[in-house]
Amino acid sequence: MSELRKDPIVDHWVIIAENRAERPNELLQPEPAGVEPEACPFCAGNEEQTPGEVAALRPAASERDAPGWRVRVVPNRYPALEHSADQPAASNGFYSSVPGVGVHEVIIECPEHLVRTTDLSEEQLAEVLLTYRDRLLVAKLDRRLRSGMIFKNVGAAAGASIEHTHSQLIATPLVPTSLAEELSSASEFYRAQGRCIFCELVERERADARRVVLDASAFVAFCPYAARFPYETWILPGAHSSHYETLSRYDCHKLASILLGAMTKIDAAADRPAYNLVVHSAPFDAEAHDLYHWHIEIIPRLTSTAGFEWGSGLYINPLAPERAAERLRDC
Amino acid sequence: MSELRKDPIVDHWVIIAENRAERPNELLQPEPAGVEPEACPFCAGNEEQTPGEVAALRPAASERDAPGWRVRVVPNRYPALEHSADQPAASNGFYSSVPGVGVHEVIIECPEHLVRTTDLSEEQLAEVLLTYRDRLLVAKLDRRLRSGMIFKNVGAAAGASIEHTHSQLIATPLVPTSLAEELSSASEFYRAQGRCIFCELVERERADARRVVLDASAFVAFCPYAARFPYETWILPGAHSSHYETLSRYDCHKLASILLGAMTKIDAAADRPAYNLVVHSAPFDAEAHDLYHWHIEIIPRLTSTAGFEWGSGLYINPLAPERAAERLRDC
Repeated sequence: MSELRKDPIVDHWVIIAENRAERPNELLQPEPAGVEPEACPFCAGNEEQTPGEVAALRPAASERDAPGWRVRVVPNRYPALEHSADQPAASNGFYSSVPGVGVHEVIIECPEHLVRTTDLSEEQLAEVLLTYRDRLLVAKLDRRLRSGMIFKNVGAAAGASIEHTHSQLIATPLVPTSLAEELSSASEFYRAQGRCIFCELVERERADARRVVLDASAFVAFCPYAARFPYETWILPGAHSSHYETLSRYDCHKLASILLGAMTKIDAAADRPAYNLVVHSAPFDAEAHDLYHWHIEIIPRLTSTAGFEWGSGLYINPLAPERAAERLRDC
Repeated sequence: MSELRKDPIVDHWVIIAENRAERPNELLQPEPAGVEPEACPFCAGNEEQTPGEVAALRPAASERDAPGWRVRVVPNRYPALEHSADQPAASNGFYSSVPGVGVHEVIIECPEHLVRTTDLSEEQLAEVLLTYRDRLLVAKLDRRLRSGMIFKNVGAAAGASIEHTHSQLIATPLVPTSLAEELSSASEFYRAQGRCIFCELVERERADARRVVLDASAFVAFCPYAARFPYETWILPGAHSSHYETLSRYDCHKLASILLGAMTKIDAAADRPAYNLVVHSAPFDAEAHDLYHWHIEIIPRLTSTAGFEWGSGLYINPLAPERAAERLRDC
């Protein structure tokens, strides 16, 4: 017997249908990303294969676009959005469009050819997380932009086209749909209850404990109640914080520790799956505030999304989050 | 330069970024579904490999669960939802769940081992479309169910686990998220303008013509203004109609004709891609009404959805719908 669960934050439902885990090929195998390491444009020494860097963590003595860097940031070669606008916003009252101004950057996480978050040291990952913060701070200087999203695709099944471990930043001139929905629900909860819905969530998950994967006091990692995917895991700061970019260097180390811990467990439980990681943070134009709480969502891509999911917005998850969390804790 | 477009029906934005079409491997190749025809559970003669049929188009003289059928409907072996409920609805004021009651059926579209919609004759497809109607009419007799969605997955990249051409029906005890969003926008438009937003859409697309793929008067096929995917195509009845299940046998033939025409063009333009097809129809509990308009969405799976799409709800489409429609018209 399956169960339909409503996400407590947004009006999305999920079908938890564990019988479907028995389906042949229900869980996808990770696919090779199909990139030859010797030709990798993200490896140190191949800097000329990418657009010129916009930032890097490197010794002061080292040269731009040359080896020596630890984390390197370059514009995406095929940007979804760009700095300059060559068209006006348009609307005929029915159809509306706005020019695709924005930022689309690639954050290359290490100079050596490593392919997964778990291949990085905690020190390396902390520098990557610090770079997320710094690039968000730069992007929000452009007053045309309203929101920035950091994300990471690992494995071909998760949409990665290059296997060398990297993240991306896309900053947009509007607040993306999913964030707008979270903000709307969080705002409603705040009006009714006088507190942040994510703070409430953290408190309830810690008290219940069945879905908690790791609890490191400054951060907690758990499988959400209405998980859409097997082993879906969220990481939230325990203390209220609306904007990722307010993270301190010290917090980045703590976040690296729990993220590495959670990813190591997911790699072990699901055999190094393809996955997406997304950082949700409050829009740029909002001051630090009491109703939204930044967080990281990790989505292993073990199930494929098919017509039903696309058509209905309902997800079918063959692994209940309580069981997923138990397996992850045991890893 | 890319462009952000808002869907005129729901509050979803799409990034039309044609420069990304140049990205290596941007467009996925279709994958083999990996099923051996001789062992196909959906072929005539292998009826014992599926659960017993709940309906079939077959000569009166032929036997249930034996060859002779033209279209056959069986329960899904791994149902996401089931008829019987063994648990109550639950809510603690923060987390809510409802039992997974519902219908999950497989509509086997032909007795021979064909794998794509375009392998069917128009006559066969008309009988499939008629079966959609009949199964929706049966599902809505269960007063616990609020909505039924017909969908079809073709190709492994679209989530198909069996290649023999088939569709599915999932009927749910709630109105799925995407349909609820469409209804909410349609309702708002109806209050403001006094007409169906989809009727307005059909009129505007016909007048503009740039995105129209096929126009057969009773039905029109076009690429939507805020297409999320390359070659995404919608088919709508030209005359207002809220519920698919009110289709006449005569209409099913006309619908088969335009659907086969559109799929033939998509197969030619995109080299027989994996795709999802979804029928959106008004909830069961609504009488035929003036604000919603049933329609079919065809989603070729040529791009993969990655972290940005999952995190933001924003889609990046490397092929503008005007260009997609032009190519489809030329096929």
